[in-house]
Amino acid sequence: MKTGGRVVALSGGVGGAKLASGLAGLLGARLTVIVNTGDDFEHLGLSISPDIDSVLYALAGLNDEQRGWGRRGETWSCMEELARLGEEDWFQLGDRDLAMHVARSHGLASGRTLSAVTAGHARRLGIEASILPMSDDPVRTTVHTDVGPLSFQHYFVKHQCRPVVRGMHFEGAEDAAVSGAALAALREEGLETIVLCPSNPYLSIDPILALPGMRDALAAAGVPIVAVSPLVGGRALKGPAAKLLDELGGLHGNAGVVRKYDGLIDGLVIDVEDEAEASELGVPVLVTHTVMNSEASRRALAQDCLSFSRSLRGKRP
Amino acid sequence: MKTGGRVVALSGGVGGAKLASGLAGLLGARLTVIVNTGDDFEHLGLSISPDIDSVLYALAGLNDEQRGWGRRGETWSCMEELARLGEEDWFQLGDRDLAMHVARSHGLASGRTLSAVTAGHARRLGIEASILPMSDDPVRTTVHTDVGPLSFQHYFVKHQCRPVVRGMHFEGAEDAAVSGAALAALREEGLETIVLCPSNPYLSIDPILALPGMRDALAAAGVPIVAVSPLVGGRALKGPAAKLLDELGGLHGNAGVVRKYDGLIDGLVIDVEDEAEASELGVPVLVTHTVMNSEASRRALAQDCLSFSRSLRGKRP
Repeated sequence: MKTGGRVVALSGGVGGAKLASGLAGLLGARLTVIVNTGDDFEHLGLSISPDIDSVLYALAGLNDEQRGWGRRGETWSCMEELARLGEEDWFQLGDRDLAMHVARSHGLASGRTLSAVTAGHARRLGIEASILPMSDDPVRTTVHTDVGPLSFQHYFVKHQCRPVVRGMHFEGAEDAAVSGAALAALREEGLETIVLCPSNPYLSIDPILALPGMRDALAAAGVPIVAVSPLVGGRALKGPAAKLLDELGGLHGNAGVVRKYDGLIDGLVIDVEDEAEASELGVPVLVTHTVMNSEASRRALAQDCLSFSRSLRGKRP
Repeated sequence: MKTGGRVVALSGGVGGAKLASGLAGLLGARLTVIVNTGDDFEHLGLSISPDIDSVLYALAGLNDEQRGWGRRGETWSCMEELARLGEEDWFQLGDRDLAMHVARSHGLASGRTLSAVTAGHARRLGIEASILPMSDDPVRTTVHTDVGPLSFQHYFVKHQCRPVVRGMHFEGAEDAAVSGAALAALREEGLETIVLCPSNPYLSIDPILALPGMRDALAAAGVPIVAVSPLVGGRALKGPAAKLLDELGGLHGNAGVVRKYDGLIDGLVIDVEDEAEASELGVPVLVTHTVMNSEASRRALAQDCLSFSRSLRGKRP
C-alpha cells in the first residue's frame, strides 16, 4: 500500500480488535477503527463499553492474550470485595479494567462525549490510530430468544449464548447519529479500503450497519470493502457467530457469512481450513491464515487484507 | 456495665474507629457509632465517605493496622491505571477500598439514603453495632486557611495540613437533619454513656456537633459524656489535632481539649504520658493507656471509658 493510503475498519470486540491491532501496526495514524457500541451498558453505575475497551487494550498492547479478553497483569481485588458487599458479580470487573470504566463514567458524567473520552484514552495509551465509537448516542442490542428478550450482556455473559436466538433489535439505532468523525474518515481523500474485522456479523457489525446513513456512507466511499470471516473450520474461535448464522440465517459456514454481507462486501477472507468452500461462495475470496495468536500473524493477516483489497480495486462495478 | 447497657460513640476516622472497634468488641449490638460525614466528597464521580469507611473496616477487622488507614491486603492496580489515563491520583484509591466507593455510589444513585447503604454494608461485613452517618444530608467541611478556603480533602491530603487554619465551616450543616436513628439511639432506654472518640475535635467531632439539635440531644440523654483525648504527649498520633488546638484555640495539650469541649463533657480520658496535666484540667480525668495498637489495648481503653463513665454517674448535676 502506498504511503498515505488510509483504511477504515469496522470492529467489535476481541476478534476484531486483533485484526485492528495488526492493521494499526502497519498503518499507525492512517487507520480509523469504527467500533460497535451496541454492547455498552451500565453496571453498578459505571458506563462500560466492552468493544471499545477491547480495541483500546489490543492497540495499546495491554490486552491479555492468554485469557483472551481484558487486561494483562489483571488483579481482582475490587471484584472480591464487591461480592462481599452483596453486589452483582456476574460481570467480571478486573481492577485495571475498572480504571477505564471509572474514567469513562466520570468523563461522560462531566458532559464529554464518548468520542472525546475515547480519543483522550487512546492518546494517553499512546495509540496513533483513531478509535471511534460508532455513535455518541446510546444504542443497546437486545437479543430476542426462546426465553424472551435479553440485553446483550445478559445473553452473552449471564446466559452464555445458550438461548436460541429469533432476532436482534438495536434499541436507539434508528435515532442515533453516526459518529461525525467516522463519516469524515469514510469521505477522506486517500481512503483505500474498508475492512470488516472478523467480529460477529449479527452482534458486532450489524449494530454499526444499523445506524442511519452508515451503509450509504460505506458504499459512497467507493473503495473495496473486504470482510474477514469470523469462522475457522466452520466454527467461531470465540462467541456465537456460527450458532447465530445458523439460527438467524439458516446457512452454515462461510456461505452464511456471504449471505449476511450480501450487497455490502467485494471480497471475503477465509481461513485455510475452509479452503474447500472458496469456489462456492460467489464472491472473490482470499484463502489465508486467519487465526491470530501472535503479533506476526496479526500483521500478516492485516497485510493480506490490504493486498487482497488492492487486487479488487479494478473489479468494482 | 450491666447487661443491656447501651453506648453511643461519636467518631471520625482512623483514631476514633480504633476505640469504636474496642467498644464494639465489648458491646456488640449495644453500640451505636455516629460518624462524621463532613469529610465526604465526590472523586472521579464516586461518593467517598472516608470516616464511615474507616469505622466499617475497623469494626469488620478489615483495616490495615500497619499503614494506619484503608484496607488490609490492599492492591493498587486501578490507581496505577487511572494515573496512566491521566486522572487525578492525589487521593489514594485501593482496589478493595474502591469496591466500597463503587457500591456506595451505586446505592446512592439508586435513590437509597447513606444510612441505608451504610447499614447494608455493615450487615454484609458482619458488624453487629449500628454505624450511622451523622446525617443523610450533605455536609462538607471547608477549612479557611492562610492560603484561602480549602475543601477538607484538599487541606488534609493535598496540602497535608500545612496551611495555617483560621476557621472551619461545615457547609450544609445548618440545613442538615441529624440522622433519625442517631436521635433514637440517644433517646433509647438503657443508654448508659456517650463517648467522644479520640478523633480530631475540630475536624471530626465538631461537624457532628454542628448539626441542629445534636447538642441538645446529647444533653437530653442524661448520661455521662466522656471524651478520649486525641493527644499523647501533647501531640496527635496522626493528623493535625494539636496544630488546630493551637491555631484555633490558642491552648496547648489537654487544656485545649477541655476548653474545646467545655460544657459538653463530664470527664476526659488522657494518656499516662500526660499524667502531669491531670490535676490542672478542671474536669474529672481518667489517666490510662490511650495508644491502641492491639485488639487487647482497644478493648482495655473501651472498658476504661465505660468504667470511668459509670464512676461519673452520681456526679452529674
